[in-house]
Amino acid sequence: MLHNDYPGQVCSIARSLEIVGERWTLLILRDVLLGRGRFDDLVESLGVTRTVLARRLDHLVEEGILERHAYQDRPPRFEYRATEKGTALRSVLAALLQWGDAYYPHPAGPPRRLQHRVCGGPVHETFRCDSCEEDVPAEQVRVVPGPALASATS
Amino acid sequence: MLHNDYPGQVCSIARSLEIVGERWTLLILRDVLLGRGRFDDLVESLGVTRTVLARRLDHLVEEGILERHAYQDRPPRFEYRATEKGTALRSVLAALLQWGDAYYPHPAGPPRRLQHRVCGGPVHETFRCDSCEEDVPAEQVRVVPGPALASATS
Repeated sequence: MLHNDYPGQVCSIARSLEIVGERWTLLILRDVLLGRGRFDDLVESLGVTRTVLARRLDHLVEEGILERHAYQDRPPRFEYRATEKGTALRSVLAALLQWGDAYYPHPAGPPRRLQHRVCGGPVHETFRCDSCEEDVPAEQVRVVPGPALASATS
Repeated sequence: MLHNDYPGQVCSIARSLEIVGERWTLLILRDVLLGRGRFDDLVESLGVTRTVLARRLDHLVEEGILERHAYQDRPPRFEYRATEKGTALRSVLAALLQWGDAYYPHPAGPPRRLQHRVCGGPVHETFRCDSCEEDVPAEQVRVVPGPALASATS
């Protein structure tokens, strides 16, 4: 099995990728968030082997990203649902979706759209400043060292 | 070499992951966007082998995500800079950063912060509705089929 750890990196991006960077993981989460959380539905939707899928699902349950629920007793059958922690990965999936739509557009138009449940309008992901409360274009976002990096390099 | 394609998926997330889902790729991009784009600096920062790094960089140049610039003639030395397409991946990196900070917090505090260049305030990534112009909590974002998916399933 390919290791996915990034030793020596004091970085929240690297840490996140250690958890969700493996092949299939983010697509499993996508399906679960779309309500396709049953094992057999995931096999069919993803075209992944049952062994790989089972391994990824176990890992996601261990990390508290998904929860297992029995939906049938005989024979036992399970479906997976996202926890709050798993649901929070929507922002990662949405960012990948926007980038794919922008730079690898499907000839027939975008496969999926994000919609505001309340008003039905199109939703996009953006940066926002907590201080001046303005939308911030990506060019105006600067990355500065935080406490963990300052303590690691001092 | 591990393949990273997801055949049969009509999905912009899968398409994006085919391009940037390989191990190291997003961390290379992170470093380049932080201004550490020289080959030797990348080797040192990432702890990756020169062979793997060269392969990933070639792929990112081919896809138009990075550009190669010579910064020295004898011997020839190159540095890599992000194109507009590469820079647009900041939203993916920022989403991974926020999730890592939230769910795998570093004991000394966040390694890096996002800051608004203009006012110095803290920046976060959020959803925004183009129609009602409100910030949209993630629970109010619905994913609906777009034209490409409708045409693939009809």
